[in-house]
Amino acid sequence: MHSIEELRELFTAYLNQESFQQEPKNLYEPNNYFLQIGGKRLRPVLLLLATELFNGKIENALPASLAIEYFHNFTLIHDDVMDNAPVRRGFKTIHEKYNLNTAILSGDVLMIKACEYLSKVEAIYFKTVFDVYTKTAIEVCEGQQYDIDFETKDTVTHDEYIEMIRLKTSVLLAASMKIGAILGGAGETDAALLYTYAENLGIAFQIQDDILDCYGDEALVGKQPGGDIIQNKKTLLLIEAIKRSSVKNDGRLQEWISKKEFNNTEKVNDFLSIFNDYEIKSFALKERDAYVQKSVQALESISLDEPKKAVLKSLVDYLVLRDF
Amino acid sequence: MHSIEELRELFTAYLNQESFQQEPKNLYEPNNYFLQIGGKRLRPVLLLLATELFNGKIENALPASLAIEYFHNFTLIHDDVMDNAPVRRGFKTIHEKYNLNTAILSGDVLMIKACEYLSKVEAIYFKTVFDVYTKTAIEVCEGQQYDIDFETKDTVTHDEYIEMIRLKTSVLLAASMKIGAILGGAGETDAALLYTYAENLGIAFQIQDDILDCYGDEALVGKQPGGDIIQNKKTLLLIEAIKRSSVKNDGRLQEWISKKEFNNTEKVNDFLSIFNDYEIKSFALKERDAYVQKSVQALESISLDEPKKAVLKSLVDYLVLRDF
Repeated sequence: MHSIEELRELFTAYLNQESFQQEPKNLYEPNNYFLQIGGKRLRPVLLLLATELFNGKIENALPASLAIEYFHNFTLIHDDVMDNAPVRRGFKTIHEKYNLNTAILSGDVLMIKACEYLSKVEAIYFKTVFDVYTKTAIEVCEGQQYDIDFETKDTVTHDEYIEMIRLKTSVLLAASMKIGAILGGAGETDAALLYTYAENLGIAFQIQDDILDCYGDEALVGKQPGGDIIQNKKTLLLIEAIKRSSVKNDGRLQEWISKKEFNNTEKVNDFLSIFNDYEIKSFALKERDAYVQKSVQALESISLDEPKKAVLKSLVDYLVLRDF
Repeated sequence: MHSIEELRELFTAYLNQESFQQEPKNLYEPNNYFLQIGGKRLRPVLLLLATELFNGKIENALPASLAIEYFHNFTLIHDDVMDNAPVRRGFKTIHEKYNLNTAILSGDVLMIKACEYLSKVEAIYFKTVFDVYTKTAIEVCEGQQYDIDFETKDTVTHDEYIEMIRLKTSVLLAASMKIGAILGGAGETDAALLYTYAENLGIAFQIQDDILDCYGDEALVGKQPGGDIIQNKKTLLLIEAIKRSSVKNDGRLQEWISKKEFNNTEKVNDFLSIFNDYEIKSFALKERDAYVQKSVQALESISLDEPKKAVLKSLVDYLVLRDF
């Protein structure tokens, strides 16, 4: 089996080999640019890893892994427009570097290219893989819509939040591993268990993201903490803090949330001090670990030998118990 | 066989039956709105017609016909954003009625729903149909990009224009008929011939559109003529007129094109008078008829009986030799 790092290199070589060379240049060149600014290539790597776990060949899984990466980047390109984000991974977003229309249309064609690459999988697996893909792609759009809806919704419950991050983040990670497993020849039960493993891991991954935004080390995370706080983003932490403070009739959080003008550092510090009063960090860690637990539980039932299970367990550390 | 009108009714009933009822409402409701404002349902009707021509059952072709209609509407929703169009078919466009983000995301999910419906075709046809679909969907995006590129390009040649309308308009009509034929059980040769028939018909259809914009009867077309002229849109007519006038060193057109402020009626009248000097109308009619000719030629070779060929011939009148 290849290491994560080796799989990433194999994938990157394939991505580069398949880079768009066709006309019209104004349609394809922006996608080459965006695909080159990188990222961890997490989804395609997980897909290839799953294929290898079930003794499948990497070569047979590369087109599907590229399809998933294309789909993921299509969502990023359009999400950046919707979020009005000028920068991604330190580089200009497409609508910023080019324009709105380019971001829309280049994103669209990237999504269709994803379908095209997906259709290159072995014929016997195509329909099964395709059904996982479309179901997931629809869910990702639904997750993005819930995320948008939450911005203007007065109250978001704990369960609504978990469902949103499950759809927006988790299901694509899970589908990547499931598709990889199918292409490796895994049976239905194992493919479903791997899905459950990655689905719960994905939720834990996102909760860790929320935790790091508040408590991460600036030097490790690479950005100032408190971005979510400044924007009143309804993360699991804020949702729980609001709940606990309203029980105590403590209006401090609501006061901060309503404030239109404020000093960022002051707001972040005050939020964190209120979070501290309500033990929000330990709550979030417990929530995260509960999903890690579900994830590990699913993986224990997969019919893989112990060394392979150990690979999946090490992924938990790599993805969730990280401090960056 | 059903008539065009009957096929449209069957399709509309299916479209309504499948209308989106799921959550999140803000994602799906805009698509229901947009799908309800109508249009001629040309592509799904052509698909169903092709299925019946080869003795296939309508029921087996309805999901694919809905997939094509979803895809077509996805392109309209995003094109309306790119063109900054406030109105479509007399109703507000999605970005106008809701907002930009809704137009992007609802369009995206509609495109994925198209894939989902496509996967409902009979298993033996799925891969073949899917390959036709992805190839076509990519081409439609390319056509839209060329259309955008042409706006800021100094000169567009006759061939470049034909290729743009082929990609933007024609291939989806052709793919609809080809997919319908495949689902009806047509052989490869017949499916390819039907594609060629509809591809050329689509080009003739678009040229007729360009002609009607200049020479259509306002009462029949339903809008004031000259919209393309006012915007300096590089249609086949303008491209040829520029070519002919530059041979004669006649700067009248270029002068009008450069003018930033003008009286619309005066510009349209003057353009038409120049078009008249260079016999542009008869040129465009000849071009249109050449594509009709290619279309009819392809249809003659299809292995269908004469009454069925007559149906396809009557489509030529219906689609191209129309005055509205």
